[in-house]
Amino acid sequence: MLQSCKDSFARTGQLKTAHGIVSTPVFSPVGSQATVKTMTPEDLESMGIEMVLANTYHLYLRPGIDVIEKVGGIHDLMSWKRAILTDSGGYQIFSLARLCKVNDEGVTFRSHIDGSSHLITPRLAIEYQVRLGSDIIMVLDQCPPPTAELEEIRKATERTHRWAGICRNCGIRNDRVMFAIVQGGLYPELRRWSAETLTSMDFAGYAIGGLSLGEPKNLTINMVRETVSALPVDKPRYLMGVGSPEDIMECVDQGIDIFDSALPTQVARKGALFTARGRRNIRNSIYKDMEAPFDPDCDCCTCSNFSAAYLNHLFKCRELLAYRLATIHNLSFISRLMRDIRLSIAEGTFPRFKRKFIEGYVTTDERVRVAQKKKWLEAQVKKKNGRG
Amino acid sequence: MLQSCKDSFARTGQLKTAHGIVSTPVFSPVGSQATVKTMTPEDLESMGIEMVLANTYHLYLRPGIDVIEKVGGIHDLMSWKRAILTDSGGYQIFSLARLCKVNDEGVTFRSHIDGSSHLITPRLAIEYQVRLGSDIIMVLDQCPPPTAELEEIRKATERTHRWAGICRNCGIRNDRVMFAIVQGGLYPELRRWSAETLTSMDFAGYAIGGLSLGEPKNLTINMVRETVSALPVDKPRYLMGVGSPEDIMECVDQGIDIFDSALPTQVARKGALFTARGRRNIRNSIYKDMEAPFDPDCDCCTCSNFSAAYLNHLFKCRELLAYRLATIHNLSFISRLMRDIRLSIAEGTFPRFKRKFIEGYVTTDERVRVAQKKKWLEAQVKKKNGRG
Repeated sequence: MLQSCKDSFARTGQLKTAHGIVSTPVFSPVGSQATVKTMTPEDLESMGIEMVLANTYHLYLRPGIDVIEKVGGIHDLMSWKRAILTDSGGYQIFSLARLCKVNDEGVTFRSHIDGSSHLITPRLAIEYQVRLGSDIIMVLDQCPPPTAELEEIRKATERTHRWAGICRNCGIRNDRVMFAIVQGGLYPELRRWSAETLTSMDFAGYAIGGLSLGEPKNLTINMVRETVSALPVDKPRYLMGVGSPEDIMECVDQGIDIFDSALPTQVARKGALFTARGRRNIRNSIYKDMEAPFDPDCDCCTCSNFSAAYLNHLFKCRELLAYRLATIHNLSFISRLMRDIRLSIAEGTFPRFKRKFIEGYVTTDERVRVAQKKKWLEAQVKKKNGRG
Repeated sequence: MLQSCKDSFARTGQLKTAHGIVSTPVFSPVGSQATVKTMTPEDLESMGIEMVLANTYHLYLRPGIDVIEKVGGIHDLMSWKRAILTDSGGYQIFSLARLCKVNDEGVTFRSHIDGSSHLITPRLAIEYQVRLGSDIIMVLDQCPPPTAELEEIRKATERTHRWAGICRNCGIRNDRVMFAIVQGGLYPELRRWSAETLTSMDFAGYAIGGLSLGEPKNLTINMVRETVSALPVDKPRYLMGVGSPEDIMECVDQGIDIFDSALPTQVARKGALFTARGRRNIRNSIYKDMEAPFDPDCDCCTCSNFSAAYLNHLFKCRELLAYRLATIHNLSFISRLMRDIRLSIAEGTFPRFKRKFIEGYVTTDERVRVAQKKKWLEAQVKKKNGRG
């Protein structure tokens, strides 16, 4: 059941999972540690969220696969009845863990929490996700830093393909599905090669990894376009780690069906809230005595119940309720955006909807954005080196 | 409408406020900054909470009385429809603010947030609470440290009486009420004198301040008993800063109607959860893989929806959801306890109910408790001296 836009690559459809149907294009909030920060499952359901992302790397380290299996799997652990997508841990091991050593067998690494040593192989990555009870399982991939040389990226991509072959042969329940991950850095020919190679292995869906890591936006979009052009039309496409409302809009236009990103929840906790005109920071003093809701056009629980002044006050006092109310607003915004995107594709009005949205939505200046992302990535490296 | 227990001083009744009827004995969660930490008004209502405590000192400094007045008062600010009790700031100025100078006119102090200088007088304390829109307004009191000498406490108590007289003459709307605060340290004769002096001024209710500040429990109970014996039977009695389930039980027995304390919410955020057998820490490894709820006898949202293993995991990861779920549990426990207390008084079975509760509830060892309280008070002093 797939409906395409005549004037773009955008499409809308339904993804059947063991935990309900997911309407695409869909945004999955990030719940790495089996919790979308500050949210209860009830909160997420009431916003129309149909799928969340959890992370094998984090859950393997804490509370551990055995514990989760014992309590009945990750759905029971979180009390979440809808779909769960899990990342294999590939990206997290290379970005968070310490002293990674990778060879054809797998990756050995030290935990960023306690320094303990671990080995993960393609087979183990699948086994762990099966035992977690994930609905959409990702293969183990090798994600080199975006700044790596061509040859290093080529080798990592080749290894990702070899590992994908091993994963593909692992048995999983037939109500669960496995997605491959396309790599290839910022090289169009590597991206196409990766997409074609993985397509030939016939996966249930295809993810695009290794993007949105600080490169300029037009490059991200180009890589997505190159990759999608080499992927089958009848399989879901998942762009990992994207993102912002404007990026989602552009990538839906390129034919992406699934998104995940910590951005909406992460910036919410810093007070940056989405509006149709762009992000605004609720800590700004213009909100100090504003009796009206932060966004009078928004029907989320936060804007329906509280004034901008109250949110401003809670943020100034660093009250925990601030982070929850801001998260509710941002996730509601994205959830509503995805619903409107799906509707406009179904009605054949997506290009107009997109144009109108982009016209109204003032994005962060590109240089500021790149500088911010660089700062964030450096903080990640610091975290990685400073702990354990 | 007051019903008394035949075999103790316990009584149950109803307190009429401009924001609904409050059934007593009642526990008011603390929301110093116009938020009961991590809770939405909806959460509190669903637990049966009928009154919360806010703090004039905190709100005067941030966001400021003008801002709150502009957005329609503290009820509108918080989106809380039920009763609000405000402390005058007396206790907070003496415990949190810096460089306090007190004379008969009032107190000058420096903000613990930015070091700015302020003066509060008895009249201003009432004016601010009126402008906040508080339902139950407290007089300004001078609360000397519990370790102070007799003469210092006598003087502070005398000043508290003088200020109470000034406050009593301030006009307030006739759907709002004003309570006096009994002081007198740990001296029975000062306590009785204070209670009698204030009673002669005919307040709508009487609070007992300056207790539960690290003194042994039997002394707290003795002071409560002495004070209550000198207070009128037909007026509500409010014990400030208490507290724990076992202390509430003892002080209901002494005839207290209203309690407030940050304890249930504060210890929740450290993982200490109430059960009928005493406090348990959810961080304990026995909960690591416990599929059952933390307390199978509890019908709160947390125990109804999540396993002990999940709570343990969230606390181990310091996930923000942990603090919310733990707060829901502890406030639900206290709210249910208060309901059962009221019911047992109405049915004439309070002494049996109390005996059964105390038998089952293992409290923290007295020495450990006093040491913990000392540590907490020292941390407060540190906070006071270290900031600004």
